[in-house]
Amino acid sequence: MSGNSFGKLFTVTTFGESHGPAIGCVIDGCPPGLILSEADIQPELDRRKPGTSRHVTQRQESDTVEILSGVYQGVTTGTPIALLIRNEDQRSKDYGNIAESFRPGHADYTYWHKYGVRDPRGGGRSSARLTAPVVGAAAIAKKWLLQQYGTTFKGCMSQLGDIPVPFQSWEHVHANPFFAASCDADLIARMEEAMDQLRRDGDSIGARIDVIAQNVPVGLGQPIYDKLDADIAYAMMGINAVKGVEIGAGFDSVAQKGSEHGDELTPEGFIGNNAGGVLGGISTGQDVKVSIAIKPTSSIRTPRRSIDKEGNPVMVETFGRHDPCVGIRATPIAEAMLALVLIDHALMHRAQCGDVSVSTPKLK
Amino acid sequence: MSGNSFGKLFTVTTFGESHGPAIGCVIDGCPPGLILSEADIQPELDRRKPGTSRHVTQRQESDTVEILSGVYQGVTTGTPIALLIRNEDQRSKDYGNIAESFRPGHADYTYWHKYGVRDPRGGGRSSARLTAPVVGAAAIAKKWLLQQYGTTFKGCMSQLGDIPVPFQSWEHVHANPFFAASCDADLIARMEEAMDQLRRDGDSIGARIDVIAQNVPVGLGQPIYDKLDADIAYAMMGINAVKGVEIGAGFDSVAQKGSEHGDELTPEGFIGNNAGGVLGGISTGQDVKVSIAIKPTSSIRTPRRSIDKEGNPVMVETFGRHDPCVGIRATPIAEAMLALVLIDHALMHRAQCGDVSVSTPKLK
Amino acid sequence: MSGNSFGKLFTVTTFGESHGPAIGCVIDGCPPGLILSEADIQPELDRRKPGTSRHVTQRQESDTVEILSGVYQGVTTGTPIALLIRNEDQRSKDYGNIAESFRPGHADYTYWHKYGVRDPRGGGRSSARLTAPVVGAAAIAKKWLLQQYGTTFKGCMSQLGDIPVPFQSWEHVHANPFFAASCDADLIARMEEAMDQLRRDGDSIGARIDVIAQNVPVGLGQPIYDKLDADIAYAMMGINAVKGVEIGAGFDSVAQKGSEHGDELTPEGFIGNNAGGVLGGISTGQDVKVSIAIKPTSSIRTPRRSIDKEGNPVMVETFGRHDPCVGIRATPIAEAMLALVLIDHALMHRAQCGDVSVSTPKLK
Amino acid sequence: MSGNSFGKLFTVTTFGESHGPAIGCVIDGCPPGLILSEADIQPELDRRKPGTSRHVTQRQESDTVEILSGVYQGVTTGTPIALLIRNEDQRSKDYGNIAESFRPGHADYTYWHKYGVRDPRGGGRSSARLTAPVVGAAAIAKKWLLQQYGTTFKGCMSQLGDIPVPFQSWEHVHANPFFAASCDADLIARMEEAMDQLRRDGDSIGARIDVIAQNVPVGLGQPIYDKLDADIAYAMMGINAVKGVEIGAGFDSVAQKGSEHGDELTPEGFIGNNAGGVLGGISTGQDVKVSIAIKPTSSIRTPRRSIDKEGNPVMVETFGRHDPCVGIRATPIAEAMLALVLIDHALMHRAQCGDVSVSTPKLK
Repeated sequence: MSGNSFGKLFTVTTFGESHGPAIGCVIDGCPPGLILSEADIQPELDRRKPGTSRHVTQRQESDTVEILSGVYQGVTTGTPIALLIRNEDQRSKDYGNIAESFRPGHADYTYWHKYGVRDPRGGGRSSARLTAPVVGAAAIAKKWLLQQYGTTFKGCMSQLGDIPVPFQSWEHVHANPFFAASCDADLIARMEEAMDQLRRDGDSIGARIDVIAQNVPVGLGQPIYDKLDADIAYAMMGINAVKGVEIGAGFDSVAQKGSEHGDELTPEGFIGNNAGGVLGGISTGQDVKVSIAIKPTSSIRTPRRSIDKEGNPVMVETFGRHDPCVGIRATPIAEAMLALVLIDHALMHRAQCGDVSVSTPKLK
Repeated sequence: MSGNSFGKLFTVTTFGESHGPAIGCVIDGCPPGLILSEADIQPELDRRKPGTSRHVTQRQESDTVEILSGVYQGVTTGTPIALLIRNEDQRSKDYGNIAESFRPGHADYTYWHKYGVRDPRGGGRSSARLTAPVVGAAAIAKKWLLQQYGTTFKGCMSQLGDIPVPFQSWEHVHANPFFAASCDADLIARMEEAMDQLRRDGDSIGARIDVIAQNVPVGLGQPIYDKLDADIAYAMMGINAVKGVEIGAGFDSVAQKGSEHGDELTPEGFIGNNAGGVLGGISTGQDVKVSIAIKPTSSIRTPRRSIDKEGNPVMVETFGRHDPCVGIRATPIAEAMLALVLIDHALMHRAQCGDVSVSTPKLK
Repeated sequence: MSGNSFGKLFTVTTFGESHGPAIGCVIDGCPPGLILSEADIQPELDRRKPGTSRHVTQRQESDTVEILSGVYQGVTTGTPIALLIRNEDQRSKDYGNIAESFRPGHADYTYWHKYGVRDPRGGGRSSARLTAPVVGAAAIAKKWLLQQYGTTFKGCMSQLGDIPVPFQSWEHVHANPFFAASCDADLIARMEEAMDQLRRDGDSIGARIDVIAQNVPVGLGQPIYDKLDADIAYAMMGINAVKGVEIGAGFDSVAQKGSEHGDELTPEGFIGNNAGGVLGGISTGQDVKVSIAIKPTSSIRTPRRSIDKEGNPVMVETFGRHDPCVGIRATPIAEAMLALVLIDHALMHRAQCGDVSVSTPKLK
Repeated sequence: MSGNSFGKLFTVTTFGESHGPAIGCVIDGCPPGLILSEADIQPELDRRKPGTSRHVTQRQESDTVEILSGVYQGVTTGTPIALLIRNEDQRSKDYGNIAESFRPGHADYTYWHKYGVRDPRGGGRSSARLTAPVVGAAAIAKKWLLQQYGTTFKGCMSQLGDIPVPFQSWEHVHANPFFAASCDADLIARMEEAMDQLRRDGDSIGARIDVIAQNVPVGLGQPIYDKLDADIAYAMMGINAVKGVEIGAGFDSVAQKGSEHGDELTPEGFIGNNAGGVLGGISTGQDVKVSIAIKPTSSIRTPRRSIDKEGNPVMVETFGRHDPCVGIRATPIAEAMLALVLIDHALMHRAQCGDVSVSTPKLK
């Protein structure tokens, strides 16, 4: 209700600040009987954690997760699962400059005006670090969805700044530091060079990320407000730095005609997926397809005009260990949010209509 | 919780189907003391209602609203306000074809699989007609926001199919049937011709709509999940046929550098609005700017391949009175959803931080 | 969220005032596929409606319910069900006295201080008339629970003022105007005489009501906050004029020893029901047993000291058609609330743990 | 939503099991700007903690609380406050007996049937130990309410088994191990002897607890479902072992006449408080008065009939460190729940009606 919980039936409540003692979350509503240990969660956290390549923040965090509750003898009991991640690498020595003025494009300004007080250390609560507990929670959701319906999640970067990254195959995603679904060595090299140049320039860049869910049961979603795609949009726009969300054909559907856009059906299934797996707010059983736009990082070394808390003009430049493209680490986060939306709707559907008989429609 | 309520503190619960006896909503959480009568609501419903030009559905509905509760001697009492709109022009004679098979791109398929039963008359609950009660509820929200903070809402169509509609001035929006912010007579004529051709072809087209809110207080929104922009994305993606949402620079921010995207601040205010009025999920006091992509109408006269409930191949064509571009009537709906998001966050902010002192920052 | 909705998954949102144009509710979350018409609902409304004996208010209301949505061809579709009841017998001529001053024991005072405005006609929103839509909604819940689990509901008055009404058999409840589970003609005569005397005196009296649910599945309820008994207490205390709630042994358990209170188990089932069918917040499969205390009606003809809106001392006496014991009509209302709690928990349990296999434990 | 969160705007989500690694909670919605440290919370935890006298469980727990988030430089920031309490004295060696069979009167049976799995160590999630995080959260609520409105909380035991404990003065509450508002040494001695006898007998007993809140603003509460008294009933019935709740005159109001029950008003205020500070679900500004019935502890040494998981008859007796009267430590818990209800309604009222101007009515 006060904005730090996600989901209605599989509810994740997060807490923590970037440089406080710890971050974490409480997951309420995980079905009982799921085999679960830290070993199911840690790999997902590792995909997201900082320091995995020279193109992301060099903050050193092991992001080691501890399960505090809700699991007994390796099995979920139906009671809340608390995840705790201690912060390790807090360098809060020098925030004087940032504490007193507002970085352009950053939450500094709005937090200050909303609350009249803010924790400036590493961005406090507005830090992308706060996506870690969510990724942890989603690892549990993914495991349950996989067991229950065979649902799987994949994601990739499809654009880095002005460099398009054409999709080749999912198998390449983990073979490069950008989550690119490409084995084009020249392309990867161009991306690396672009990132190195940005670092030299003290600047940053945006990215476009695509994620899909496969083997989604038909029938998830509500007809009017809690449409599956509406909740996906909410989830994605809630990720730090996201400025746009598309489902299926997205903005391309503006110029499409109805005779082109509407995916025809045959006894073998749909023959296209402009819908992105959602019609009328409810899943079709096709792949759920989502794209998001991520803005460039606000914390850059380039000096910029701003004001201080008293309204006086100042120049602001940000030092420290910032991702020059927050989009690089966004793929596992976007997958996580999609998983959280789907498990919530799967449980809601079960409440309304009883157990889902997983029909496996033959769909494109 | 079950998907037919919008908002947490200013909560709108809608009911009804396109061809049932009535549609309407209950608004729970309207502050007491607001002067209110049907005359405040009807004009907004009239902006959205069918039959206002030859380019939209010819269904004849007066959409006359009746206030059933929550108002005493012309003043809101703080108790629920129920709005009732009787359906008048129900032609449910011939739905045999549609009742048994699924229109491509339509909710027919998913409703059937979700519920095992559906009301096929005019699309039932999935009809865009169900946006009428929301527009009614938002008229109340708009009145309160205007009185409290001076907040106003505007919207226009910025693209019709592949025809861009450059913004000239808000004053033109009501001088043409498309909500185009343009007085370019040639452009309007091209749009009219495109629509006439579509009607002749039995086809449909998408549209892009832009809406803004002005005089929004600083500080509305929550930091993590109930970000103002996340709730806007949820609200917009919940409108029938929407496939994409952008805030501020939206997908253009992918190719922007941080030094370009982040709006600098001077003592006179922000010098740009790539943020679209939201930073870190919280309003900046600038205009809140939103764009949405609306797909082409699914109900078209062009025959298309589909299947019936038993899975047999059929050809489906839709007769009846359908908008060839649902985007044309979408502008007041998008404004309405934006108003509902803002009043909810305004009330939430008041809960958390006390009455908002409306600072009027000098902002671009 | 704003206090006019009940239930999380089977959510009933009511609207209306005692003397406004209509009262009603929207039920969101009713499972699809339930055969339903007004004929399922009207009988429950008739049990609660005024004017059925000389001991209750003589207001003439047919309380005719109209289903506005959510049902197609006699079957629920899974979309919201709106119920509408037009008010017929509004005699709002003379509220001058009550509109300006506060009846002792009545919501007049608190509404005025909370909202700064109130609808004084017949108590406005605080009227017990607003329980009618709830009873209507609960008729649907009862039908579903009966079909799904065989669950049934019964209630009776167990005390009228200082007259205890010993339980004999459920079959007698409908054979007298008090919902007494007794065929003791002398007792009924004493109750009638007590009521007649009260009417002559212009005074009122309280009552104690007992309700039970039978054939409740094991496992409904949440362990910590949304305990089944906590939600029952919330539901019951929310009924107009209720000042106390007991589950099972209730306040008698204070003087019990653990060796006496804890219901022992044998292979044939529990051998007692001090628990009232709930242990640790979760249903045991035994009868759920609830008792409530209803205070005497506040609107009485006896003159009493009060103040007006300016704080000046006044004498207040209430004319009009008031129940001298609101407890008389409370039995169907208490049953209704219990049914709404149980269906909500049944759906929640289904979300968490899948379809309930209705074990029929051999229980006392 | 899944039952482990309390409150809508000041939301407390708890986690943990009695013998797991830790217990704790996340508080979402605490207003920013409150001066806060562990020193504000620890004293309330100490009032509740075990081992303070020979009449309660001898489990050795320091119940040391750590604030993990939401506070910066000693001030709340408006972001979630996580409280962590490590479990120290877990003696889980011998639960074989209890793990396989069900203690009469205990949640063992229902947890097993609901989830198909349960953590039997010390009662797992159903342990009264889980009230510790709530008491911690309420310490924050109390501090804010005191600063904002001067609201204070008091509680006492008014009955121990069949021994009534007449109220003398609040000042005595902390001078005896029972929270008795009495300085009657003979009475305290009788209570001590009763407890010692119970311990010798291996049995347990119930208790009645009274709590009040003073200096409550007028106008808190919602008219229909989220009535202030309904939420109080929900909160109290959610405390472990509670079987009954009364507001004001409670069950005594059954036998009262309207002319006696309804508290008259004079320019100096109400002249009685049968209402218990709530009329029509909304606070009157008088003391909010609540009483609860607590059943005897289920875990007793006396052998009792039960069944094991396979349904075979067994005899169960519970060893270990159990409170022979859970009511003894219930006073601070009941105060805590009342504080959580009030802060939630205070914030809700602020959302609906703006800042509360704390009128200080002259009330009894």
